[in-house]
Amino acid sequence: MKFKLPLYKKPDFHLPKFLEYPNITLHRVEKIGVAPDYFHATTIFPEYYKLNNRWILLAPSRMDCVVVALDNEQLEAKELRRLQLGDMVVIGRSKDGSDGIYIHTKGFRDDVATSETFAFRTGRSRETSYSRDYDQLYELLEFEKESGYITWVLGPAVVFDYDSKKAMISLIENGYVHAILAGNALAAHDLEGAVLKTALGQDIYTQESIADGHYHHLDIINKARRFSSLEEFISDLNIDDSIMCACVKNNIPVVLAGSIRDDGPLPGVIADAYTAQDAMRQHTKKATTVLCLATQLHSIATGNMTPSYQVINDIVRPVSIFSVDVSEFAVNKLRDRGTLEVTSFVTNIQDFIVNLQRKLVDGKINRTCD
Amino acid sequence: MKFKLPLYKKPDFHLPKFLEYPNITLHRVEKIGVAPDYFHATTIFPEYYKLNNRWILLAPSRMDCVVVALDNEQLEAKELRRLQLGDMVVIGRSKDGSDGIYIHTKGFRDDVATSETFAFRTGRSRETSYSRDYDQLYELLEFEKESGYITWVLGPAVVFDYDSKKAMISLIENGYVHAILAGNALAAHDLEGAVLKTALGQDIYTQESIADGHYHHLDIINKARRFSSLEEFISDLNIDDSIMCACVKNNIPVVLAGSIRDDGPLPGVIADAYTAQDAMRQHTKKATTVLCLATQLHSIATGNMTPSYQVINDIVRPVSIFSVDVSEFAVNKLRDRGTLEVTSFVTNIQDFIVNLQRKLVDGKINRTCD
Amino acid sequence: MKFKLPLYKKPDFHLPKFLEYPNITLHRVEKIGVAPDYFHATTIFPEYYKLNNRWILLAPSRMDCVVVALDNEQLEAKELRRLQLGDMVVIGRSKDGSDGIYIHTKGFRDDVATSETFAFRTGRSRETSYSRDYDQLYELLEFEKESGYITWVLGPAVVFDYDSKKAMISLIENGYVHAILAGNALAAHDLEGAVLKTALGQDIYTQESIADGHYHHLDIINKARRFSSLEEFISDLNIDDSIMCACVKNNIPVVLAGSIRDDGPLPGVIADAYTAQDAMRQHTKKATTVLCLATQLHSIATGNMTPSYQVINDIVRPVSIFSVDVSEFAVNKLRDRGTLEVTSFVTNIQDFIVNLQRKLVDGKINRTCD
Amino acid sequence: MKFKLPLYKKPDFHLPKFLEYPNITLHRVEKIGVAPDYFHATTIFPEYYKLNNRWILLAPSRMDCVVVALDNEQLEAKELRRLQLGDMVVIGRSKDGSDGIYIHTKGFRDDVATSETFAFRTGRSRETSYSRDYDQLYELLEFEKESGYITWVLGPAVVFDYDSKKAMISLIENGYVHAILAGNALAAHDLEGAVLKTALGQDIYTQESIADGHYHHLDIINKARRFSSLEEFISDLNIDDSIMCACVKNNIPVVLAGSIRDDGPLPGVIADAYTAQDAMRQHTKKATTVLCLATQLHSIATGNMTPSYQVINDIVRPVSIFSVDVSEFAVNKLRDRGTLEVTSFVTNIQDFIVNLQRKLVDGKINRTCD
Repeated sequence: MKFKLPLYKKPDFHLPKFLEYPNITLHRVEKIGVAPDYFHATTIFPEYYKLNNRWILLAPSRMDCVVVALDNEQLEAKELRRLQLGDMVVIGRSKDGSDGIYIHTKGFRDDVATSETFAFRTGRSRETSYSRDYDQLYELLEFEKESGYITWVLGPAVVFDYDSKKAMISLIENGYVHAILAGNALAAHDLEGAVLKTALGQDIYTQESIADGHYHHLDIINKARRFSSLEEFISDLNIDDSIMCACVKNNIPVVLAGSIRDDGPLPGVIADAYTAQDAMRQHTKKATTVLCLATQLHSIATGNMTPSYQVINDIVRPVSIFSVDVSEFAVNKLRDRGTLEVTSFVTNIQDFIVNLQRKLVDGKINRTCD
Repeated sequence: MKFKLPLYKKPDFHLPKFLEYPNITLHRVEKIGVAPDYFHATTIFPEYYKLNNRWILLAPSRMDCVVVALDNEQLEAKELRRLQLGDMVVIGRSKDGSDGIYIHTKGFRDDVATSETFAFRTGRSRETSYSRDYDQLYELLEFEKESGYITWVLGPAVVFDYDSKKAMISLIENGYVHAILAGNALAAHDLEGAVLKTALGQDIYTQESIADGHYHHLDIINKARRFSSLEEFISDLNIDDSIMCACVKNNIPVVLAGSIRDDGPLPGVIADAYTAQDAMRQHTKKATTVLCLATQLHSIATGNMTPSYQVINDIVRPVSIFSVDVSEFAVNKLRDRGTLEVTSFVTNIQDFIVNLQRKLVDGKINRTCD
Repeated sequence: MKFKLPLYKKPDFHLPKFLEYPNITLHRVEKIGVAPDYFHATTIFPEYYKLNNRWILLAPSRMDCVVVALDNEQLEAKELRRLQLGDMVVIGRSKDGSDGIYIHTKGFRDDVATSETFAFRTGRSRETSYSRDYDQLYELLEFEKESGYITWVLGPAVVFDYDSKKAMISLIENGYVHAILAGNALAAHDLEGAVLKTALGQDIYTQESIADGHYHHLDIINKARRFSSLEEFISDLNIDDSIMCACVKNNIPVVLAGSIRDDGPLPGVIADAYTAQDAMRQHTKKATTVLCLATQLHSIATGNMTPSYQVINDIVRPVSIFSVDVSEFAVNKLRDRGTLEVTSFVTNIQDFIVNLQRKLVDGKINRTCD
Repeated sequence: MKFKLPLYKKPDFHLPKFLEYPNITLHRVEKIGVAPDYFHATTIFPEYYKLNNRWILLAPSRMDCVVVALDNEQLEAKELRRLQLGDMVVIGRSKDGSDGIYIHTKGFRDDVATSETFAFRTGRSRETSYSRDYDQLYELLEFEKESGYITWVLGPAVVFDYDSKKAMISLIENGYVHAILAGNALAAHDLEGAVLKTALGQDIYTQESIADGHYHHLDIINKARRFSSLEEFISDLNIDDSIMCACVKNNIPVVLAGSIRDDGPLPGVIADAYTAQDAMRQHTKKATTVLCLATQLHSIATGNMTPSYQVINDIVRPVSIFSVDVSEFAVNKLRDRGTLEVTSFVTNIQDFIVNLQRKLVDGKINRTCD
């Protein structure tokens, strides 16, 4: 069974009500970075705006942005901080089209009526059956490898373990990774592992705490800071066996956002949080599948800027978001913060990555259910 | 690399102090089920008792029991409730031999000195590297399949997922399971899945909640109650595709301990908690490896009655206990309750079982690190 | 503001459809402990059964039972295992009355329509605001103290801490506790604390691990086993400062259900899981408020046997269930297992109990929001 | 009982070995922001450096910094990124003084020998008794109010609940807060609650989800962005009932560090992660007690830059760090990342803050144990 893109059901804008609804109202930005009152804020769903009597789909989108009309022809979703004097901002908060704004929540599926008054096990937790989710994810990633843009959001735990690190490198080398969003710690401990076999001073295979191991990441960071980029550092020291190296070799873009937890930082880390957001959004703008592993900060940041759809060659297709963490609270938080369309796996990301690699790359696994 | 049993280092009872230490003191049980004051209570470690001037190793052991001397020749670890009038109980609470009781904590390894005053990551958590633990477990289970007694302690979550259930069945069929300790719920939902494809009314592959699904386990239980045993029920209805069936076919003993959460119960479930303990201990007495998956109640109960060693053909060998749960608290609790020698995996048991099955049975996985 | 019982809205059985619906169908039990096929199983909601053309409310109820009609006049909810030969069991699985069975899910509140298509924070978690839940609980308990039956389900953690233990004793002494459901460990560590100031060998105030502390609970249990009841033990040794003593003094019934984790057990602990269920149900039959603290086993067991309503002096009133645990998974599990009407608090039960005591008994707290 | 500062036990530098050990070695910084090889990195403990034959205590300190000697007289702990050309950096990694560097781990207490070979409950978890920790914290804060510098690190959950927010405001107004370190979200939802009674659109008392509530924080942020500072915004709109207002009124400094999760940001939020670190360190340099509530990012960042001691008026005193979170993993992570001297509370921060306020401010609580 192969993955097929679900068909997108456009709203029927020929319905009389849509013909009668007014065009959007636009108000001018009078102060840089400040929206006019009653601005419309975007959701994660496809949104249509009536401009010059035509309903136009906003794309690329993201939630919690305002919408700016350019030349009364084009629309752009803009963060508050990016608003310029004179920008014309869409006003209005109804969602049904009556303000010229229509939020389309059922583009990819009809609402499912849940009729049972008494049922067990309605949430998603460690006890949820993940077999089909894995199977569907395997198929999706095979499809996305060729036709999509797979964006990974990685917490440092990915490089704390030998097998998961190896598996991640293998996924990069085999085309399943199109961009990585992470922080200083992921890169630091990844390179620490490559050079010294440890993460935070602990051997990533044997779990041994190495003498003076608390120097390891500081030494790596300090060495790297002699260079103007991680690429140079990696090439100069001939480093291998690491996610960062695999990305360099395979031309996979990596955004490293700085944070207040950082030592160093490494060269290439973006110090300004909002410049980092802009850099991350260059990828979520293109992302068709997003996998968030073991990081609340980067996952929620990415979730905030990832819409539930993309328009690619005039076709509207869904964006799939996966959140993987050992804690129900962590995976549910993404949903609590507005990223409603997420599929969560409650498990250790070590097992998760290794599973993907074995199935997609090693390809030698006969699923037990075949 | 093959697994090798670690050599057991006996205490050197030729040391003068051991020659000088007295024989144990014994006091008579005067009331059924009640020990004399100052009774010695067992730990999980090898314990030696001086009887007739010889130091005798207690075996089989378990923690929190009293020790009864039979004919001044043999020793038996007995739960308080099993004490009989006239039983001669070992008295004394020093551990160094001076009461005739020696607790030997370093039989299998010397105490490791940790010299670092400042180090990161000292505990075990979701961020621990599990690669080597998996590798060592694979080797151990290959060894134990032939030479040991592998006891599994299973929570119902094992049968809530299609793949993990299949994997468990495969491990049984291929010789990696010598006994199962579980409760009514495991068996009920296992059989529910076999007959109706659900667990608590939810499809174990598609996650769909089936209409009237809350009847599923009740119907299965009610049907089974017509029979005097699960074996009869399974054979009469020709049930397959389940852990319970695999156990019946392969003559693997299953102890089902009743609990106050049970519906039913199924035939064969042991209603009395202490009779159930006795039945469980028949297996922990022989167990050389214990794997506890996704159940606090049964894991701690089993941990309580599993010593850190067994004596098999006069050879003292360690018992390995593994605790697998998605919650640090759950896996650590086993240690907090005295089962000090446990190796914990913080992950979803679905992935854990599937990993074991793929490596041990499918055998087709080239480890990424080879 | 005082707590007022919500009005119960009976179904309107004068509606033509209810007049037309048939009386229930009854089938005979042919084998002890086994229900006829297609038996009706109870939910937690009020259920009406048409007998002799009258719609009769089942009370007391509990979920996952079958319903037996006595003399075609009275109804009784019975666990499968209690079915007797000749019992006449209600057959049918529709819920709308068409089988003579009507499940009334909206007796106390209308279904709330949730109209927002895009909203944050829809679940209950550590981040939920608990201020009003506390306020409502304080009022409820004041009311229930006089007019209800407050049943507490306690895990051993309650007696691991000095303040929470003191607070619980105070709540008992001041009338806020009408019954306690617990296990052997609660009583053992409660008495250990009373006599030796520790729980599992650790000082419950200073956290110090006492030398040979692992003997503490065994010594207490062993001493108690000389007596035929905990009452005798307590009075003979003149024990005070404990939950068990406060219950003895105030004639508060305590059900101690045995489990496979138990050491001992203490006198009075019920060894048979299903006898224990029967003893527990004596209290859930009367319970109007149930508070479940820090025990999954006993909480889910109690939830299973607690209906969402009681009939007291011909008035139908709701039963309130509260589940308190530091883990979202634990509090949500109660709901996942069918106890839908639970209010969960994600916090440490130590703080929870102390809060109740300070507000209800000390009464000296000016709430910060007053 | 009043809190008393523990006496600091200086190393005895008159011991012959200390007289013989050499002065420190210093190497020049040759590239901005890069340390020479074999640089010494600081720990959280008091560290002495031999300069001109005198052992000098490094103060203020923090971990993972390099040490720069100024004029061969004074020492400064510097982050890698702050190193200037020509800075003279301490070289050497032994800790016993033999490189002229002595790390003093036992200044405030001798190492406690743990002699028990078999004991229960050795970690800290939800089951730890917190009564004495609370009592000691109450006393400590009374002391610190007058004599210390109490720094709070707050996650947004603090303002998600009505009572905890009120309690925090009360603690500020009554002198128990000397600085707050937080992020954009804390301030945004705090002000959202003050103006609109919600947090992320949910009523902070009733838990109701308000229609169009997802606009609430965006509207507040957008309004605030018209002003050049939060102070102006608060004063112009006459906002009250909030942590930010209480800080403005009471001249309590607040550092708001930007992150990639931010909407907005609010005026005053520091966009650059490392500028934010510098601003935070201004407070940890003075902090004598640090309380970290419900935020992993800010807690670990703060932990990294907080030493275990301060020198105030030539007296060396310990710094107390408290970490409060409902998750064992979260509170333990601070320790795993090197902040070894932390006292953790596993509970909901709502209860924790309310407890402090009631005891310290309301003062009307008779502790149940009095």
